[in-house]
Amino acid sequence: MNDCLFCKVITGDIPARKIYEDDEFLSFLDIFPANRGHSLVIPKTHHRDIQSIPEELYAGLALRAKRVADILTQKLSPEGVTIFQMNKSAGWQSVFHIHFHVIPRWEADSLHKPWSIVPGVESELESVQQIIGFHRG
Amino acid sequence: MNDCLFCKVITGDIPARKIYEDDEFLSFLDIFPANRGHSLVIPKTHHRDIQSIPEELYAGLALRAKRVADILTQKLSPEGVTIFQMNKSAGWQSVFHIHFHVIPRWEADSLHKPWSIVPGVESELESVQQIIGFHRG
Repeated sequence: MNDCLFCKVITGDIPARKIYEDDEFLSFLDIFPANRGHSLVIPKTHHRDIQSIPEELYAGLALRAKRVADILTQKLSPEGVTIFQMNKSAGWQSVFHIHFHVIPRWEADSLHKPWSIVPGVESELESVQQIIGFHRG
Repeated sequence: MNDCLFCKVITGDIPARKIYEDDEFLSFLDIFPANRGHSLVIPKTHHRDIQSIPEELYAGLALRAKRVADILTQKLSPEGVTIFQMNKSAGWQSVFHIHFHVIPRWEADSLHKPWSIVPGVESELESVQQIIGFHRG
């Protein structure tokens, strides 16, 4: 897409520090890193977010996120890895070309857990379960 | 595994509010919800984290996370969705049976962005790129 930052990375119009590439997917260092080795993984075709990407391509994207996690684990020896995949501005997406964040983690790093561990109210859990329903795949 | 909470959910020894199931994967409401409809997606076989799960199974797990995101989007009309996949205690994993968090999001919700958007130092990005290398898949 013409005005998409990540499409321009794919065409080479914007430079990126690439770490992984295959025919369908690309991974490069995030220039606003949360931690050392923080990488993004994107499909080479333009899809805005989880709602608009075909499920098989989403699965392929996640598979590459795992490959990148494996590479980062081997090369940087982190104590953990956290994967984020953000959709729409309410979901913290800022570049609207779907991507996975792969972030090497250390116990002493500076990331903040995004929510507090508080038990849900049973009546609210039951009510939302009723609304969602049960789906067999 | 005997002492695994999620394996006990799979066998039915621990109850869960199930919202999606197929032959290989299961999804249920998180009892410590970050938001309304916060769900977990797990494989029915025990794998500790991203390092020990086969990559095809990881891809299949992500595909079900997308299906669950689709169901939650249809039923709860959130303004976004954020996916988290946490590995090892340094990566915020607390149950050691691999899982994806699927969290419906709203602009006014109470989650905190886990890192600040600060540009990386060019020399550090270059140095870590050298260490990681470039990998063709």
